[in-house]
This record gives sequence, C-alpha cells and structure tokens, in this order.
Amino acid sequence: MTNIFASLPAELDSEVFSELLRDKNIRIERIVSKGHTSPASGWYDQEDNEWLLVLEGAGTILFADGRQVTLNKGDFLYIPAHEKHKVAWTDPDRLTIWLAVHYSDSYGGNHA
Amino acid sequence: MTNIFASLPAELDSEVFSELLRDKNIRIERIVSKGHTSPASGWYDQEDNEWLLVLEGAGTILFADGRQVTLNKGDFLYIPAHEKHKVAWTDPDRLTIWLAVHYSDSYGGNHA
Repeated sequence: MTNIFASLPAELDSEVFSELLRDKNIRIERIVSKGHTSPASGWYDQEDNEWLLVLEGAGTILFADGRQVTLNKGDFLYIPAHEKHKVAWTDPDRLTIWLAVHYSDSYGGNHA
Repeated sequence: MTNIFASLPAELDSEVFSELLRDKNIRIERIVSKGHTSPASGWYDQEDNEWLLVLEGAGTILFADGRQVTLNKGDFLYIPAHEKHKVAWTDPDRLTIWLAVHYSDSYGGNHA
C-alpha cells in the first residue's frame, strides 16, 4: 500500500489495522472502522504515546475520567501513554479512516 | 489548531509550516503549498527520518539520484535521514496539504 485511501476493506466484521511504518521508536498505522467500538468493559492502557487523526468519517474517544472527544474529518488528538481510553462510537453509515502515530523508545525498526 | 484542514492560510507567499506535535523524538507538522518548490540549487539533507503524506493536492519530490516521486491525495512516502531531496513541483492551481512526521532521538518534548 502506498496510498492511505487505497485497499480499503470490502468487509468489516471488525476494525482493520494496516501498519504503514515501523521503526525504532515509532509505528504508523491506518485503522478502518464502520460502527465498531471497543469492547464494553476494559480500557486501552498503552505503553506508547499516540497521535490520532481522522482522515474520513467520525469517531468518539471516551477517556476513563469521563471525558468524551468526537473527532470529525481532519480532527486530531494526542493521547499520552497510559491515559486510559476506548472508542465509544464510530459512524455506522460510512467508513472511518484513522491515522495513528504511536511513538516510544521500544520499537525495533523494520521499515528498511 | 485541532483540525488539520482548518486555519488554512489566505495568502501563500511561501510555504506555511504549522507544528502539530513535538516530543522527545518526534515532530509532526502540516505544510501548505501552492505552486511552491524548493530553491533551484541545493538539497534538503535532514538529520531526521521523515514520513510524508499528501492530504490534499499534489506534489513531486526529486531525489539527488534523479528519482522523482509524484504524490497525489493519500500517497505517502518514507524519506530516510540524509537522503537528499527537494520539492520539484506542487500544484499551482490549488492548495497542497502535507502531513510530515519527522522522527529521531534529538527532539526536546514540549507538547504537554
């Protein structure tokens, strides 16, 4: 894949993750959702910082402190490592395409 | 700015760079061009690796070895540190919006 809007999945039983870059301290992925949310119980508690951008569609991130942030096309959000969150909603009527940049010092590079 | 398509410059005498995130080993910026290119002589010779994505418009990257890569909406490109390159062309008739993720171990964090 060399275009982030290409190779969109035809079937979406679950969210589809595609890794676009992985290097020593960074990982960039595309996530495609359509009405998917995180499981009702539990939170993402990530080792890595995340910078999240919505390229198409819309989704809502819920934080453990009750804060909700709805992201529409072009909106971006920084989620520090270990800030517990989940995906509370994504648009059920169209694809939502997320760009997620995860970064830390823990990745082994394999982009080359 | 919390939306990458917002606050687009009205005047574009030169390319406009907006930093979206800066942390210890990463810097994410939006670049807005309209017909701008790099100076005719000289190359970008960057300390950092770069992951580049075109969100709107189109542009051509020229490498010192003669290779040219034209990026349209959604196309992305990895440019390793010290791979000499320049912007050879951007669409003169509409805005080109680039997302550039620069990463290394050399940044001081100030996103918080």
